[in-house]
Amino acid sequence: MSSAPHQHRGPRIFLAGFSGSGKSAVGRRVAGLLGWDFVDADEALVAQAGRPIDRIFAEDGEDAFRSLERQVIAGLAARERIVVSTGGGAMVQDSCRSLMLDAGLVVTLDARPETLLARLSAVPVPDGAAETMVRPMVAGGGLARVESLKRERQWAYALAHWTVPTDSLNVEQAAFEVARAWRRLGAPHTWEADPLLAATVTVEQAAYPLFVGWDVLEDGFAQRLAACGGTNGRAFIISDTHVVHPYARAVQHALHRAGMEMGMFTIPPGEERKTLATAQVLYEWLAERRVERRDVLIAVGGGVVGDLAGFVAATMLRGVRVVQVPTSLTAMVDSSIGGKTAVDLPAGKNLVGAFHHPLFVFADVAALKTLPERVLTEGWAEALKHGMALDAGLVDTYEREADRLLGLDPELTTEVVARNAAVKGRIVTEDERETSGRRMLLNYGHTMGHGIEAAAGFHHYLHGEAVAIGMTGAARLGAAHGVTPEHVVARQAALLERYGLPNAYAGVESEAAWEAMGRDKKAAAGRLSWVLLEEVGRAGVYRDVPAELAERALRELRA
Amino acid sequence: MSSAPHQHRGPRIFLAGFSGSGKSAVGRRVAGLLGWDFVDADEALVAQAGRPIDRIFAEDGEDAFRSLERQVIAGLAARERIVVSTGGGAMVQDSCRSLMLDAGLVVTLDARPETLLARLSAVPVPDGAAETMVRPMVAGGGLARVESLKRERQWAYALAHWTVPTDSLNVEQAAFEVARAWRRLGAPHTWEADPLLAATVTVEQAAYPLFVGWDVLEDGFAQRLAACGGTNGRAFIISDTHVVHPYARAVQHALHRAGMEMGMFTIPPGEERKTLATAQVLYEWLAERRVERRDVLIAVGGGVVGDLAGFVAATMLRGVRVVQVPTSLTAMVDSSIGGKTAVDLPAGKNLVGAFHHPLFVFADVAALKTLPERVLTEGWAEALKHGMALDAGLVDTYEREADRLLGLDPELTTEVVARNAAVKGRIVTEDERETSGRRMLLNYGHTMGHGIEAAAGFHHYLHGEAVAIGMTGAARLGAAHGVTPEHVVARQAALLERYGLPNAYAGVESEAAWEAMGRDKKAAAGRLSWVLLEEVGRAGVYRDVPAELAERALRELRA
Repeated sequence: MSSAPHQHRGPRIFLAGFSGSGKSAVGRRVAGLLGWDFVDADEALVAQAGRPIDRIFAEDGEDAFRSLERQVIAGLAARERIVVSTGGGAMVQDSCRSLMLDAGLVVTLDARPETLLARLSAVPVPDGAAETMVRPMVAGGGLARVESLKRERQWAYALAHWTVPTDSLNVEQAAFEVARAWRRLGAPHTWEADPLLAATVTVEQAAYPLFVGWDVLEDGFAQRLAACGGTNGRAFIISDTHVVHPYARAVQHALHRAGMEMGMFTIPPGEERKTLATAQVLYEWLAERRVERRDVLIAVGGGVVGDLAGFVAATMLRGVRVVQVPTSLTAMVDSSIGGKTAVDLPAGKNLVGAFHHPLFVFADVAALKTLPERVLTEGWAEALKHGMALDAGLVDTYEREADRLLGLDPELTTEVVARNAAVKGRIVTEDERETSGRRMLLNYGHTMGHGIEAAAGFHHYLHGEAVAIGMTGAARLGAAHGVTPEHVVARQAALLERYGLPNAYAGVESEAAWEAMGRDKKAAAGRLSWVLLEEVGRAGVYRDVPAELAERALRELRA
Repeated sequence: MSSAPHQHRGPRIFLAGFSGSGKSAVGRRVAGLLGWDFVDADEALVAQAGRPIDRIFAEDGEDAFRSLERQVIAGLAARERIVVSTGGGAMVQDSCRSLMLDAGLVVTLDARPETLLARLSAVPVPDGAAETMVRPMVAGGGLARVESLKRERQWAYALAHWTVPTDSLNVEQAAFEVARAWRRLGAPHTWEADPLLAATVTVEQAAYPLFVGWDVLEDGFAQRLAACGGTNGRAFIISDTHVVHPYARAVQHALHRAGMEMGMFTIPPGEERKTLATAQVLYEWLAERRVERRDVLIAVGGGVVGDLAGFVAATMLRGVRVVQVPTSLTAMVDSSIGGKTAVDLPAGKNLVGAFHHPLFVFADVAALKTLPERVLTEGWAEALKHGMALDAGLVDTYEREADRLLGLDPELTTEVVARNAAVKGRIVTEDERETSGRRMLLNYGHTMGHGIEAAAGFHHYLHGEAVAIGMTGAARLGAAHGVTPEHVVARQAALLERYGLPNAYAGVESEAAWEAMGRDKKAAAGRLSWVLLEEVGRAGVYRDVPAELAERALRELRA
C-alpha cells in the first residue's frame, strides 16, 4: 500500500469524537502514560469565556462559539507535550480540523451508536461541566438522534490520523491504543529533521530512529538520548574490553557532561561470552545498582554486546529500555537494527532471546577505523548481502568505490553505512516478525553460512566470513536450480573477492555442516527454505529446492 | 467506559471499506497469518453470476446486484475460518451489514481521501478483475468524488467492530492490526459457551480463557488445547517431581489419546530452582528436541513451575506459546494468570522475566486434595487478599463457608477458585502492565510480605505465609494512617486465623525486613507506595504514608 500520511509538527495529541466516546477519561490516562499535560478544550473555553456553553450559544449564536473554540484550540496548539480533548463539533469545522491536523496527532475515539447512548445515559454529568448542555440533548434524542448525528459527522471524524473503536475497550486499553499511535505515528516528528537520520523503523509498538554519522559520538549522543526520552532515569553502559576505549568512554563523557547518573560494565570480547552465564553477571550487577524501569541500558560494541545487552534489557525487571551504539560494521548495518536480541546455547547460536527494539540506534562510523582488519572485513559480508539481495544501487557503489570504501573514506563510508541501515530498517518495517517472507530475504547466505559456522565450532570462522561462503554457495545453488543467472554468480564472486572475503570453507566435513543446517531454528517443520538471487538486488524465498542439489552445492563449497 | 460490543458467532472476518483501502491485499495476509482461507466476495459474485459486475448493473440494475451480493455473503457466512473482503457498498446495505456483524468480526480498513485516490490511481487494475468498473469510476472523479463518497458512506463503515486506518501502514502492518483485533475481540466466541469458563482475560495482543473445574484434567484438557489452537505442533510438558503424579501424567495421557506428539521434563520442586540455571537446563532439553515456534509448552505445577516454564517459553526461540495448568491454590487464583513470568536472582525474587501471556489457563481444583497441608494453607492467603482488597462478597463466602472450603468441598471450592480467577483476570484486563494503579491493588500485603520473606532468606516462610503477615501489617498501618477502619482490621485478623495463616513473623530482625523492602523492584524512584484497605473489598494506593509509621508497623508485626 502506498502511504500518504498527513504530516504534523509537534508533540501534541488531539482527541476527537462524539460525546460518550470517552475523550476526557482516556485523554487523562494518555497524558499520564506519556507524562504530558491534559486539557479539556471545552472546559478551557468555558473558563476563558466566563460563561457556560449553552449561554454562549444562546447569547452569541453558534458562529461565535465556533470562533471561540478555534481560538482556544489555536492557543493549545502552541503548547507542547499536551493531550487535548475536543468538543464533538470541533472536527467538523474545516478550519479547526486543519489546525489540529497540522499541529499534532489527531486521534478519533469512536463507538457504535448503542454504546454511545448507553454511556451518555449511564454517566451523570457533574454540575457546571462543559458538557451539561450537549449530553442531555444527545441522550434525550435516543438512539435515532445519535445515529443521525453519526450520519452527519462521521466523514469528519474519519479524517483523523488514527481511530480507536472503544466499544470493547476499558479506559486503560483505549489510552494504550492512543499512546501507541503516538509512538508509531507521532513521535517521528521529533527526529525527522535530524541531519544524522538514516531511517526510521516503524514496528507494532513504536517507531525509532537510526542515526549514522562520522565522529559524532562525543558531541552528538547525549542530545539524541534526551530527544528520544532516555534521560529520565540513569544510564547503564554495557561494553566489552576491546571497545571500552575510546567508544564507551566517549559515551560516558558525553553523558557525564549532560549531568546524567550512570554506571559501566565491560565484558571480555568474543562470541563465547554471549551466554546466559554472562547475562547472569549483568543481571546481578544491575540488581546491585537497583536498576529501575525508567533507567536505560546503552550497548556500546559489536554484535555480541548488542545481542547480549539487548537480551538483558528485554528481561531485567521484565523490560527496561536499551539504546544500541554499534561499533563494528556488522552491528552498524545489521545486528543493532530490528529488535532481535539473544544469547547462545551449546546447541546453537541465538536460540534464547526476545524481540526488544531499541529506543534508537546510534552508529559512529569513525569507530570502524580502530577495528582489527579481519573484523572489519567480515563486516562487509552483511553489507554486500544487503546489496546483492535487496539493493542493486548499493552493489554499483561497492564495485565503483571499492578503494574509497576499503580505505574508510569518511563521507562515502558514512553514506554507505547509512544506506545499509536504511535497507535493514525498511525490511524490518515491512516484516517485523518474519511473517510475510520479506525479512527472511535478509537470511541470504545464512543457511549454509550457519551450518558451516556451527560445524566448525563457532571459533574457526567469524560470522561474516561464514555468510560470505554461504552467499557463494547460495548463488551456485540458485544457478543449479535455474533461478540465479550466471552473470550474477560471477559478479558476486568478484565482489566478495574484492572485499577480501572467503568463498570456500576448509577444515570441516560437508556432512557435518549439512547436519548442522537442519538444526537451524528457522528450519520450519524440518524443511529448509532457501533465499536465492533472481537478479542483482532481488532475492526470493524458494521452498522447492531438492535436498540433493543443496547438499551437492554445500559439498562443492569445500575448498 | 461501559462496553456494549455487538456479539457475533463464528470464526470469520469480513473486511469493509472503500476501494483503495487495501481489503484484498490485507485480507490475503490476514488469512496467511491465521491459517484461514481468503475469499474476495466480488470475485465470488462474478464467478457465480458468470458476468462482470458492470454487466450485472447494466442488465439487471443495482437492486439485483445487491440481492446477489447478499446471497454471496450469506453463503460465505456459512463457512468457517475464512477472511472475506467485501465490495465497497456491502456495508451500506442494512441487511447485508447485519448479516456480517452477526456472522463474524467486521473490520473496516480506512484511509484518508488523498490516500485512497493515490492508491486507486497508482495501482493498475488487472483485466477482468471485479473492481474494473468501480475503480476507474471513483478514481476518475478525482478527490471530490472520493470525498463525497466518504461523506455518504462513512457512517456505515463506522459500524464495524473495529477500524484500522491504513494511511501510514504497509500491508503486513495492516494485516497484523486485523489479526490482533481478531485475537482480542473475535477469538473469545470460541470459548464463550464453555461450562468451565471462569473468565476471559483481554490484553493488548490477545484474549484468553481461564478454565476452572473439578476433576476435569484427564477428560477436559485436550479438547481445550485443540479449541485454542494449541495442537498444530508438539507439546512439551514441564512439571516438578511433586506433581508429576498424577497431574502431569494426566495431561500426558490426555494428549496421548488425542494423538499428539510430546515430551515431558520434571524439575525438582522448590523456589530455589526458579533460577537461570534451571532455565538453561530446560532450554538445552528443548533445543535437543528441536522445539519450533508452533510447538507449545505446558506448565503443570505451582507458581515455581508456572513462572519458570513461562519465562522459558517467552525466551526460547524468542517466544513459543505456553499453557498454564496450575496445581496449587496460589497458582490457580493468582500466579498462573496475567502473563508475569520470571526467575529469581540471588538479589531478589522475580528480578528477571518477561510478560508472556498463556494461550489459556486450565485449573483442575481437585488437585488441591493432594497438596501438602502447609502449601494448601499458604494458598488461601492470595484468595483472602482478593476478597479483602477487591471483592467483599468473597469475604462473606470465606466467613460463612469456612468449614466447607477448608474441607475442599468440590462444588463450593471450584466456585470460589473460579471467582478468584475472575477477580485476577478482571484486574489484569483493566491494567495489563501496571500503569493505571489498578493492578497494583493486587500487591496488598506484599510490600511487608516481600521484605519479611527476603530477610528470612526465602526458605523460612512460604510466599503466602509472608503475604498473610504483610496483610496484617498493612491493615494495622492503614488504621494508623487513618484509612482502614478498626472493624476491617479485626475482620481480616479473624479470617486469617480461621484459615490457619500466621499474623506475625519471628526469627528475623525488623531492620533487615525494612532494608529488604527498599530493594523491591516496585519501589518506584526509591519511594514506597502502600496498598491500604478502605473497606472490606476496597483498597487504594497511598503514596503519602510516613516512613516512620510503616517502620513501626513492621516492627510491631514481629512476634
